[in-house]
Amino acid sequence: MNGAEALLKTIVAAGIDVCFANGGTTEMPMILAFDTVTGIKPLLGLFEGVCSGAADGYGRMKEKPALCLLHLGPGLANGIANLHNARRARTPLLNVIGEHASWHLEANAPLAMDIECLCKTFSGWQRTVRSAETIARDTADAIEAALRGQIASLIVPCDLQWKEYQGKIPAVTSFTCDRPDRHVIESAAKMLKSAEKTALIMNGRALRRRGLEAAARIRAAAGCDLYCINFPAYVDQGVGIVPLTRVPYFPEPAAALLAPYKAVVLAGTDEPVNFFGYEGQWSNPVAADVPKLRVDGDSQDAAEALEALAEELGAPGKAAIGKLVAGYKVPDVPSGKLTPETACLTLAALQPENAIIVDEGLTTSMTYFPLGATLAPHSYFMLTGGAIGQGMPSATGAAVACPDRPVINLQADGSAMYTVQSLWTQAREGMNVTTLICSNRSYNIINLELQRAGVTNPGPRVLSFTDLGSPPIDWPSLSKGMGVPGVAVETAEDLAREMKKALREPGPHLIEMIL
Amino acid sequence: MNGAEALLKTIVAAGIDVCFANGGTTEMPMILAFDTVTGIKPLLGLFEGVCSGAADGYGRMKEKPALCLLHLGPGLANGIANLHNARRARTPLLNVIGEHASWHLEANAPLAMDIECLCKTFSGWQRTVRSAETIARDTADAIEAALRGQIASLIVPCDLQWKEYQGKIPAVTSFTCDRPDRHVIESAAKMLKSAEKTALIMNGRALRRRGLEAAARIRAAAGCDLYCINFPAYVDQGVGIVPLTRVPYFPEPAAALLAPYKAVVLAGTDEPVNFFGYEGQWSNPVAADVPKLRVDGDSQDAAEALEALAEELGAPGKAAIGKLVAGYKVPDVPSGKLTPETACLTLAALQPENAIIVDEGLTTSMTYFPLGATLAPHSYFMLTGGAIGQGMPSATGAAVACPDRPVINLQADGSAMYTVQSLWTQAREGMNVTTLICSNRSYNIINLELQRAGVTNPGPRVLSFTDLGSPPIDWPSLSKGMGVPGVAVETAEDLAREMKKALREPGPHLIEMIL
Repeated sequence: MNGAEALLKTIVAAGIDVCFANGGTTEMPMILAFDTVTGIKPLLGLFEGVCSGAADGYGRMKEKPALCLLHLGPGLANGIANLHNARRARTPLLNVIGEHASWHLEANAPLAMDIECLCKTFSGWQRTVRSAETIARDTADAIEAALRGQIASLIVPCDLQWKEYQGKIPAVTSFTCDRPDRHVIESAAKMLKSAEKTALIMNGRALRRRGLEAAARIRAAAGCDLYCINFPAYVDQGVGIVPLTRVPYFPEPAAALLAPYKAVVLAGTDEPVNFFGYEGQWSNPVAADVPKLRVDGDSQDAAEALEALAEELGAPGKAAIGKLVAGYKVPDVPSGKLTPETACLTLAALQPENAIIVDEGLTTSMTYFPLGATLAPHSYFMLTGGAIGQGMPSATGAAVACPDRPVINLQADGSAMYTVQSLWTQAREGMNVTTLICSNRSYNIINLELQRAGVTNPGPRVLSFTDLGSPPIDWPSLSKGMGVPGVAVETAEDLAREMKKALREPGPHLIEMIL
Repeated sequence: MNGAEALLKTIVAAGIDVCFANGGTTEMPMILAFDTVTGIKPLLGLFEGVCSGAADGYGRMKEKPALCLLHLGPGLANGIANLHNARRARTPLLNVIGEHASWHLEANAPLAMDIECLCKTFSGWQRTVRSAETIARDTADAIEAALRGQIASLIVPCDLQWKEYQGKIPAVTSFTCDRPDRHVIESAAKMLKSAEKTALIMNGRALRRRGLEAAARIRAAAGCDLYCINFPAYVDQGVGIVPLTRVPYFPEPAAALLAPYKAVVLAGTDEPVNFFGYEGQWSNPVAADVPKLRVDGDSQDAAEALEALAEELGAPGKAAIGKLVAGYKVPDVPSGKLTPETACLTLAALQPENAIIVDEGLTTSMTYFPLGATLAPHSYFMLTGGAIGQGMPSATGAAVACPDRPVINLQADGSAMYTVQSLWTQAREGMNVTTLICSNRSYNIINLELQRAGVTNPGPRVLSFTDLGSPPIDWPSLSKGMGVPGVAVETAEDLAREMKKALREPGPHLIEMIL
């Protein structure tokens, strides 16, 4: 076997069975290895941001890495925005990048770039393979690093992929979290018991079912309010799960909401950070003099830490927290001209049990999250690192991870255009993804920022930065162009009808919600 | 005025009048400055690769920088692939990136990235603004750096954009090339006179009209053969201009073609490099023991160096080189089912005088370049750094640079999908760009590489890396979705009819050439 086959066999042996890829000449041996090494399926993305975003969505659903295979520096560069989002989500992700043959590097061929420098900006672990003899071990090390909830980038020169490999295929050691720190847990319990008004702010594993059960018990014991950060990586939501409040996006309402708390316990996240720095505001919504304590470290499991905290507090068992968890309540389908609010209500009214909601709706979807608590159980995830163009690719990856679950992508139009090529991969694989385009024909968040900056009457050149309406994007045509049937709607009734149809029919669909 | 206005005024004072932009909150003061500072037009791209590629195309046509305005690390990352192409083309380009407020950086907000690290991979010059007092001087320094034919990246924290600026608007010193080095010119002349068979291989300013006139005179005096590198940044072509041979893409034909030469003179380029390293081949097509001499340095003008060389050789004046320059000859419009060859012939037959041909046709356009020599004078440019997705954006930028000239983008389908959002900007501005999609529904270059690797019967998983045919992209629908009228053709006759129509009607058009 050659180096590429050794690499791929190591990957398959570690249980990775999907590869989101856009390869080229420097990855030729790895591409060819997909015919000789079985057990892993390659999926083509027509732009690398699709591949990296899909790997992020896959990783968030499965809590295990997919392989993302990219072509040299430029291919990697195209994937960076969504790798940045994956880093912020702490998604486990194995990122393999082909490099020129080692001996060809100094010639400075047209495609040559400093790949290692690019990798530094998003990788938790990175290495360039230096010898064919170490290629399998390097790959195993990369996977072990990825399993810790980070991006592991392995740069593989083409000549080493071709070279004969005579070693063994190493087994990958699965990652075992460190146990919670008893002293920290005791301190957190004391903090919750002694302060008069406390908040528990969460992200990461704290927001999956097990963590949320523990959070409900902690609330039952200590009376603390439960929050998630503004851009959570993943949330289990719905009936039977304790409801959460999201820390608001803008600094003023975030600071106002959190101002009453005398102590803040954190799980799966450091203290919340304002998305942007505005003059006259602090960087963080919780005041500097409020005591804060994080119950877990990066190598610990936030859910386990919350369970330990619940025990420390002598919290009731999960059977006794019925009053705290959400009951079942589905809104009626609204009627009339679509607005952001009625679009969110329609989605909430119709989303099937076990749906995966991928929310990059931005200003349109602001009212959706609070509706989720009382619906049938579902997964919810969103843009984590602010690099727009994450929704469509990660919905694609989520559909690969969970082919039996309906995926609904609530998707801002401006952001959708960043990685619109995702639709083609959805069509190619017949994925059950329904994309709801929030067609407000504007970078609306910038309009809000203009208002914040006190600009009441911006001129045409300023508006040209935010206006997506000339020409309006014809989403059904765009979607059809990539093999996904699409339709445009203007009322809640029409949206409801088309959503039902899309969810009934197999394969991807797109609905442009003209707002 | 605030810092952002000082920055923009410095840019306008330097004669930069176009900004390809996709901005956000951290660029808000710069966005607002477009309403108060006149003399520069912002053009929105719906993905940063469109902005950076358009700035590249603009810079290649005008030989002066456009402003590229990007949003934080992720926005910059999305622009890197085409910034890499621009770097390889030595395009003058001013790249301004907004950064979080200085005081907000340590909070590590979701969008925070190491922007300086990203910039290192493509910038010839870079600086982060550290004080509002220096913002205009920093901007002027950046422009002066860009004028040297490189990417100058200026990172501007948001708080410094807002701050009051009380200084002057500095004037930018235009870049004056160093004079050619007499010793080098004399050595090159000796080399051309003494070796029995010599080649002159060119890129950069050597390939513009003035350089090519000097090259023709050198050929007349010394009998050397004239080449351009495989991926030239820009070539003036057509009747009255000396014809060139492109160094072939694959190493074997390149080495075979260049093997007879006993000495090689270089202008505007270092020695040619093979695009990829293949086992059994060298990194360069010219043998290591063949003497090579470059007549210019990076701070010199290759055209001026060639003129000096022509004088040193006692070459005849340009009036006396009539036999060497190309005569006028236009191929007939072919007929029948479209092939790569008949597509290129049809384009050559119908392209108007003074057209700008942007060639990212890759395997489809391989036969086009040699046809250009005998046509009406036109500009030709292409993918320089191998980062696909350059054609559509740079055609967009070329149309901004030269609104009175027809732009024809010969465009591979797979590459087109990378930055397909360009069509929207073309529609928005009503640009005279005709896009000819080479619809072979494949990453065909990878198929050629499979053949080279001896793979005669690749399996379905390998083919899934190259197949763009399931589903086929419906280019007219995709194009319509972004406001550009599109049509698909299968014969040369239909292509000719639709090309004539597209070139007659103002505004952008797309023709899918089904191959």
